[in-house]
Formats: sequence, structure tokens, C-alpha cells
Amino acid sequence: MQDFQAILAAIHAELDSVIDRGKVATYIPELATVDARNFGVYLNCVDGPNFHVGQSDLPFSIQSVSKVLTLSRAIGLVGDAIWERVDVEPSGNPFNHLSLLELENGIPRNPLINAGALVIADILVSELKNPKDDLLQYIRDLTDDQNIHFNEKVAQSEKKTGFKNYAAANLLKSFGNLKNDVGVVLDFYFHQCSIEMNCAQLSNAFYYLANRGTCKRGNSFLTESHIKRVNALMLSCGFYDEAGEFAFKVGLPGKSGVGGGIVALLPNNFVVVTWSPGLNEKGNSLLGMEFLERFTTQTKLSIF
Amino acid sequence: MQDFQAILAAIHAELDSVIDRGKVATYIPELATVDARNFGVYLNCVDGPNFHVGQSDLPFSIQSVSKVLTLSRAIGLVGDAIWERVDVEPSGNPFNHLSLLELENGIPRNPLINAGALVIADILVSELKNPKDDLLQYIRDLTDDQNIHFNEKVAQSEKKTGFKNYAAANLLKSFGNLKNDVGVVLDFYFHQCSIEMNCAQLSNAFYYLANRGTCKRGNSFLTESHIKRVNALMLSCGFYDEAGEFAFKVGLPGKSGVGGGIVALLPNNFVVVTWSPGLNEKGNSLLGMEFLERFTTQTKLSIF
Amino acid sequence: MQDFQAILAAIHAELDSVIDRGKVATYIPELATVDARNFGVYLNCVDGPNFHVGQSDLPFSIQSVSKVLTLSRAIGLVGDAIWERVDVEPSGNPFNHLSLLELENGIPRNPLINAGALVIADILVSELKNPKDDLLQYIRDLTDDQNIHFNEKVAQSEKKTGFKNYAAANLLKSFGNLKNDVGVVLDFYFHQCSIEMNCAQLSNAFYYLANRGTCKRGNSFLTESHIKRVNALMLSCGFYDEAGEFAFKVGLPGKSGVGGGIVALLPNNFVVVTWSPGLNEKGNSLLGMEFLERFTTQTKLSIF
Amino acid sequence: MQDFQAILAAIHAELDSVIDRGKVATYIPELATVDARNFGVYLNCVDGPNFHVGQSDLPFSIQSVSKVLTLSRAIGLVGDAIWERVDVEPSGNPFNHLSLLELENGIPRNPLINAGALVIADILVSELKNPKDDLLQYIRDLTDDQNIHFNEKVAQSEKKTGFKNYAAANLLKSFGNLKNDVGVVLDFYFHQCSIEMNCAQLSNAFYYLANRGTCKRGNSFLTESHIKRVNALMLSCGFYDEAGEFAFKVGLPGKSGVGGGIVALLPNNFVVVTWSPGLNEKGNSLLGMEFLERFTTQTKLSIF
Repeated sequence: MQDFQAILAAIHAELDSVIDRGKVATYIPELATVDARNFGVYLNCVDGPNFHVGQSDLPFSIQSVSKVLTLSRAIGLVGDAIWERVDVEPSGNPFNHLSLLELENGIPRNPLINAGALVIADILVSELKNPKDDLLQYIRDLTDDQNIHFNEKVAQSEKKTGFKNYAAANLLKSFGNLKNDVGVVLDFYFHQCSIEMNCAQLSNAFYYLANRGTCKRGNSFLTESHIKRVNALMLSCGFYDEAGEFAFKVGLPGKSGVGGGIVALLPNNFVVVTWSPGLNEKGNSLLGMEFLERFTTQTKLSIF
Repeated sequence: MQDFQAILAAIHAELDSVIDRGKVATYIPELATVDARNFGVYLNCVDGPNFHVGQSDLPFSIQSVSKVLTLSRAIGLVGDAIWERVDVEPSGNPFNHLSLLELENGIPRNPLINAGALVIADILVSELKNPKDDLLQYIRDLTDDQNIHFNEKVAQSEKKTGFKNYAAANLLKSFGNLKNDVGVVLDFYFHQCSIEMNCAQLSNAFYYLANRGTCKRGNSFLTESHIKRVNALMLSCGFYDEAGEFAFKVGLPGKSGVGGGIVALLPNNFVVVTWSPGLNEKGNSLLGMEFLERFTTQTKLSIF
Repeated sequence: MQDFQAILAAIHAELDSVIDRGKVATYIPELATVDARNFGVYLNCVDGPNFHVGQSDLPFSIQSVSKVLTLSRAIGLVGDAIWERVDVEPSGNPFNHLSLLELENGIPRNPLINAGALVIADILVSELKNPKDDLLQYIRDLTDDQNIHFNEKVAQSEKKTGFKNYAAANLLKSFGNLKNDVGVVLDFYFHQCSIEMNCAQLSNAFYYLANRGTCKRGNSFLTESHIKRVNALMLSCGFYDEAGEFAFKVGLPGKSGVGGGIVALLPNNFVVVTWSPGLNEKGNSLLGMEFLERFTTQTKLSIF
Repeated sequence: MQDFQAILAAIHAELDSVIDRGKVATYIPELATVDARNFGVYLNCVDGPNFHVGQSDLPFSIQSVSKVLTLSRAIGLVGDAIWERVDVEPSGNPFNHLSLLELENGIPRNPLINAGALVIADILVSELKNPKDDLLQYIRDLTDDQNIHFNEKVAQSEKKTGFKNYAAANLLKSFGNLKNDVGVVLDFYFHQCSIEMNCAQLSNAFYYLANRGTCKRGNSFLTESHIKRVNALMLSCGFYDEAGEFAFKVGLPGKSGVGGGIVALLPNNFVVVTWSPGLNEKGNSLLGMEFLERFTTQTKLSIF
């Protein structure tokens, strides 16, 4: 057994002295106010002890990390019918996301890019009575923690400025791949992105994906086969245009968000969450990417 | 001098017996109600007599033909400052219009594609006190005819279903190339498209472009140099993905609309307007395109 | 009647003092040796006197200007069958020429981009017994001048370095839109581009396009309808990604080459040829573009 | 311990009765002669017994599967310098492979698409004295089997018809990302693709990737870190436009070839090779894909 606490602390110390932490996201004005010096890590071992270092107990905006949780919820509700409306291929395309959607007749490449997550949001809005309340409760149940909330200010901030998301939703609508009103779907989507958790909570929320489907509370929401598929999607598509790079250097399924959080996991072994708000030029947490690369290299723990 | 009335009548008769008139546009539900058998032509000669055949006195929705008139209005207001926000190149791209906009950082290819016309609409909304009223008056003045109106039903119909235009406007907004509220700009845009005129009126509205800038009423709104540029843009960009085909077969600057109208003109000579609601697969009036090809071939009147 | 000699001389003098003449093309090593200070103009009036200024009697590499002449030759041989293998639309695409070819299954956008000119070259190689000799004789006959030659050094230079043309030819071949051997077609193509003429000769070569099909020698090679179409193609597609800009500012059908030559013409009126080897960033002669804009603005002679 | 022999036999029997086996590749004429009824599987367990079923001892053309082996060879020779010339991201793009190369200035998306493999071939041609002999010996050593050969007929067949590869190589050359002569690089590339092995041999050749770098002979050619990266690349990029689908359904790193072979592996556990020449519409072996999906679903053996 490796000394995880020492490893976490050592890598954290090395990186914490780095001056260039990338840039905090400013396109959502409310996110720009976060202190860039925060840097937390939480390692949540399946059937084992947990380890943490830095600001792992401060809540942050999970943003796109939420897409994995809404995907899980949608699979639980409608199963593989999802795949008639969204594909499972990496988008591989930094420069023209809407173009791909146009070329492929409104079928998003995968559920972890924005267009795909909007289709998932549309499914949840269709299927659930009180979509926002239900999603929050689902995540609280997964995490076994009732102290998880939307940040209404962040949701409203994105509602005012998220023009690319409005563009994507309207394009989906024009292809008939959005059943509900654009405004309703986006309201749900901006709320899911605004959810706040700390590193510890987030590691608990993703615990089921490392634990063959059984969540912190002991329930199972998805079959083992579905768990495998969600993990595969994170590996192929979880890091925007840097998915290949993350697979290549880190070698774990994972998902990042512009709030600076990254979740990664080794099936049957652990979930690890990092949080540092500064982003690299591809929009992923700079210190988080670096932390995870060093962590899997030193521990030799990866799926490959 | 050629016998234009005989030529118009002969070509009209040949084509009127054609059974396949293409498909009336249905994406704006209100447009789908038009009788596909209408087929009018109006030839408006500079300093000369006029000729007409068929339903040249029935009003129809001018739709994209309006883009030339709003462009003229905007040039009159802000001059060449327009070209900082929209380019003058053909789009040449049937399959991914929004993608081009993305790749080119929100600068539309030209003012006659939808994205470009939205930028022009945004300029007019910024510059004019009562944008819709002002535009209508401008067109009435150009035409010297007060009996020109918006069709509110058509405007509302497109407001409910024009998702691709909402997508384009939001994408422009995300690149900072739309100054006003998306909803306000689109309301103006849907109204400009809903304007109704008959072939005779429309030929009068475009008379200034064949008459070195002097409109029906005798006023000049644009310099000769600007007139030349608007005509050049119609030639390069007036027929969506069939601009080259129209230049090649017809050889006149022109503009089509999904209402089935086409305006074309020979500088210093004439304006000709055709109207037949059935469209070919590129979205241009099937009989109109054919009429104009035969007309310029028989009369040998073209810019080339 | 305007004083053309004075107008030519005045604009030439204004521009000749300009220091930034753009960059001489270097991608064909042999072209890089040309003296950038050359700047000739030749105005060839239909039924009228000719005018010239600067180095209008020095031969230069006509390069892509040759595409109009091979297109005419091919139309003369196989007529409208050409259009089954090449389209007539502007490419409108600075950044991914081969991609368009891929997306559109090996049908080039038009005969004036490289891929389209390769298809035309392939037709000539199929139809002619001695393709290179025949083409040279055809151009000598059009021009009524036997003193026109290939520059073998330039042809060989491009044969060694024209990798993008090899890529395009092989891509065409993979789609079955090249009937002959890639090497044979490219040998013909590199030779057609290497033809040298001076401004006066080149204006004579294009005289038939301003003179309803009748060339300098008095023969007619093409119908009036075909002449109209070739002129339309030059207007839509003659200036790479600056075709719209040229139509907009100059308002004449024309064609440029990376050797720094530009031919433009007003049907029934004149052919004008400019030569200045420095290119703008789109690959068109910087002084030539500027000269023609000023010339058509001052004389008010344009098709629009 | 699961009864692998029974599992292999059962799935093989189920699938062998399937009538639609897809289409044997015909674009390389020599490949079209293979009997579509062949269907072999070989399971090679790390430190354990092996299992096989069907025609696992008949040699077939490994084609693109060879790209993993040349990549390994190149990493062994020049290490991470490779990544200056080729990226590690999925291409995600079925429709315009050359376009991506154009847009990204001649840097192929990854070493497992053709353009990337050509860059790897170029590196080997630069680094090795007798590139073809050396590669063959390298693969024989990895496999611990001297009875592995090029199929000269297949290599020559592709040399005559592989126009898309000529196009890609010339495009790379135009961007300066091919150092050697196009013909020399393609000759090497067509030979590497023509290598023939049976399922058993191929599983031995890939054994080092499941065995932390130690090959059948006991040597190590690559570090553990490099092994992890090659496996990650196979997962992200090994199945053309179906990489996401393979990760999603099968959940193993793998690589397919148009000869109908697929190699997949679970680190520290096994290499499995399937061979059935009929391809699905994405160009991957139809029965092979299906076999592996059923195998990993039944055995619950995957990296996720």
C-alpha cells in the first residue's frame, strides 16, 4: 500500500509554488470573483480511507462536471433511448462546435459537450415533474449529503451572458432535437451548472462510478454495464479538446468544469477530485491536470 | 428595340405549362398557404415603358429580397463603417452556415446571408428611433408608393419558428457583433422579411439600383460608387449557394427570397421582377430562375 | 471620350511611389527571382486605340491566368459536358481548399481554383494528341502572336515543389475525377502555368472575351453564350478568396496569377492587364488590385 | 476463473451463423480476394494459458493494426520528440480527414490515422538504415516468431491505387511535416500495411502492451509510461470514427485494420485478436466488433 497522504502532500506542495496558475474563467462574470489561490485535492478510496490536502472543503461551482450526473440521471430514466438523440464519439474539434452540430443534423457528438448536455437537459425536463428540485435531490442522494445547493447568482449570471448556449439550443431546436421550450431547457441547464460542492462532496457524488454502481448511500441507480459506458464516455469525451491529452498523460476517466474542478476515477479503486480555478488555454484546470498527471505517474495507478 | 412584351409573354407561356414548379416554402407556416400557381413578371425599363405578364399585381412576401433594401439604408446611415462588421465575400457553403460564422469569429461573409442581414438589422436598430416605421417609410419613398405594409401574421409566424435565426443572432452576440438585444433585432428582422409587395412595386423599389442611384421619386440616397457595390454584392452573393449558377446562366445582379420573388437588373437598362412561389432545392424560385435565364439568353441583355 | 493615356499615367505614377508592394511569391523558387519594381499596364480597347504605361512589354509568368484560357479550350472541345465534372460556384474558403473537395466528393467548386483547373487539364490531356503543343498553339492563335513560350525552368521548379497540387490531383484521382495519370496531368498543368507573356500579349489573348468571342486574328472559338459564362465565372471566382472584394471594388470580370499579373475586361469595351509581382496576403498583385480599383472608379467603367 | 474456452466457443458459434458479415474491403484490389467466411479468435493471457477458436491460424493482412507497432518503434527511437509532429487527440471526423490536416497546418491529429502514421513512417525512414528490413525484424522479435513477412502483391496493389494516401503524404510534405521523399515514405507505409500474421502471431506481437512492456521474448522496448500512452492512444483513436463506440461498448484499448483484424487488450490480463474480413460501414470488422462487445460484457473484463 502506497502512502497516499505523503504523495498528495508532496505533489500539492510542488505545484502550489507554481506562479502561473492559468486564468480564472471570466465569461460567466460571477465565476471571475473566485480566489485563484485555492487549490484543494480529495482522494476517496473505495472501501478504504480518504485523504485530502489544501482547500478541499471549500465549495466551488461544478459547472460541466454536472454533465456526468445529469447523464446518469437520464440513463436511469429512459435507458439507451438516449443514444437516438446523442452520439458517443469524441468531438475532436476545438474550433467549430456548432458546425459539427449543423453537419450532423442536430445530433450532438456526445453528452459531455454543451450541445449534448442540452439534449440530456431536455430529456430531464420532459421526464421529471420538478426537474430542478429532482436533480438536486438526486445528487444529494448520490452523495449522501443534503447540504448541496444551486448558486442562483451564478445561474442568473450565465442566463444573461450564455449566448453560445442559446445559439446551440436554438440550433438543436431547428433540427427538432429539443422537445421543450429553449428558455426552459436553458434555465435547467444553467442551474445544473451552478451547483456548488467541495472536493469531498464531489468525490462522494462520483463514488458510484468507481464502485460498480453503488453510491455512498448504498443504493444502485445504474447497471454495471451502464457504469462502464459512462466511464468510457468520460475517458473519450470528458476534457473538451484535450480528451486525448488527458487519456494520454493521466490515463483515467474524468470530467472537468470551468469552475476549476476535475473529477477522475479508477474503477474499483478510487475517485480523486482536484480544484484550482485557473484554467489552461483549453479551459481545463491547469494545476488539476498537472496534479493528476504526476499522481498517476508516481503511483502507477491508471486504467492503462 | 426588341419586342419585350412578346418575349415576356412567350417565355411565360412556355413555363406556365410546366408541371413541376418546385415546392412552396413551409418552414414559415404562414408562407405555406400561398397558391403555387401564381406566376407574375414585371419588366421596368429605365426611361422607358414597362411590360408585365401574369400575376404581377398580387402582393407576396418579399422575405430575403428585403436584405438589399436594409443594406442600402444602412450604407446611407453609416457608410463604409458597415464593412468592419460584415465582409463582402460569397459564402459558397451550402452545408454549414453557422460554422463559417464560428470559424471567422462572428464576422458574417456578406450582408445578404442571414447572419449578415442580422448585423445590418442591428445597425438599423441602433441608428433609427423607430426602426420598423422608418424602414417601411424608406421603402415607400424608394418605391414612391405608400401602399406597402408588413404582414404581421408572417412576422409572428417566423418569430415562433425561426430557430436558426435565433441561433445565428445568439452566435453573433457571443462574438460581440450584435449590439442590441437579440429579441429586438430579430423582431425587426422578421418584420423586414414580412413586407409584402407585388412585382410592379418591387421593381420600383429597386429602380434606383438600375438608375445610378436615383429612385422612382427622383431622390438619390446613395452615391454611384455605393450603387456599384450593392450591385456587385447581389451578383456575388444574392442567391445563396446558387450565386455562381445565377451569374453563369442569367448574368445579372439579383436577389431572391423564399416567398418566390426574384429581382434582377441591368444597370442603366431595366429592373425585372419574377414571382412564382415554388422553390428549387437551393431555395430559389424554380420558374423565376428559368424565366430569367431564357430572357437574358434570348435578348442577349446581361452584364457579361 | 476620356483621356485614357493621362488616366493610366496618373494612377501609375501615384502607385509607383508606394513603398509597400507586397511580397513576391516564393513558393515556386523560380518566381522569387523577379524584380519587384516592375509595374506595367496595358489597356486594349475593342475597336479602338491601345494605351500603356510602365513595363508593359516585359514577359512574366502568367500562372493562374492561364486557367481561363484552358477553360475556353476545353469548352471548345467538349462543350457543357465540362460541368458534369466541375461546378460553377465560388469557393469562398480561404482555409481548407482540399476539404471542400473532400466534402463534395471530388467535384471542384469551379474551374478557376487549382483543383478545378486540374480537371480541365485532365480533359485537355484526354482530348488532345499533343496537349502542350496544342495549348501553346491555341494561345498563339488567340493572341495572333507566335512569340509565346513555356518557361521550362518555372515548370520544372513547380514540378519539384508543388506538393499541394500533387495532393489535389491525387484526391481527385481517388474520387475518379481524374482520368489520366496524375504525373501526366500535373506536367501539363505546370507547363500551362509557366507560359510567359507581357501585358500587351496577354491583353490580346483575352481580347475575344471582350469582343463577343472574336479573337485578335478574327476567328471565333466560342459562342456568345459561352463567352458570357466564362466572364461570369471570372467575376465570381477569378480572385481566390478575394473574388467578392474585386467585384465590389473593381466591378469587372478578371483573373489574377501569382506571377503578379491581372487581366480584367469590360465586355464590348476593353481588356486591361496589370503586372506588378508583389502580392497581397490573399495572393493577388497588390498594386494591380489598387490600380484597377482607381481606374474603374475614376472612369466609371464597370459592369455594375 | 472463468471458462474462457467455453465463452469463446459460444460467442463464436452465435456469430458464425450470422449471414450479414459486412463487406470485404475492395479499395485495395488484392484484399478483395479473401474468403469472407473466415472468422478466427485468439485469446492470449498474460502468464496464463491461451485459447482459440475458428481460423486463428490463417495469416491475414494486418493493415492499420501495424500503426501501433510502427508507433512503438518510433517512440523507442526518438522518444517524445514524436509529439512535436503529431498530436494525441481523436480525429472525430468521418467526412473530411484531409481538411483537418489542412486546418491544423499539417499536424495530424494522432499517429493512428493515416496522416499520422505517414509521419511515423517518415520518422522511421529517417532513423533506420534499412527501414523495411528493420521493421520486419522488430516485429519478428516482439512476436518471437521469424515466420512473418510482407505480402509484396498487397503492397504493390496499394501502391497503384492508394491515391488518398498520396494526397495525404503530399499535403504533409507541403506543410514541411514529411522529411523524406513522398514515394519512399509511401513505399515503406504500403509495406508495413501489407504484413501478414495470423491471430496467434498478432496476439504475441501485442503482448508487450498487456505485459507492462515486456514482450514475448522477454525484452522490454518501451518504458511503462510509454506503454500506458500507447494504450491510451489505442483507446482514444484506434477505431477511426468509431473509437467512442468501441470504448463505449467494448471498453478496451484496441486497433482495427481493413484486413478485418482487431487487436484489443486488458493491461496485466490479456490480448485478444479477432479476424473476420467483412467490414461495417465505418471500416471495422463487423463480427470482430460484435464478438468483443459480447466477450467483455459476459466476462465483465474491461478497463472501465
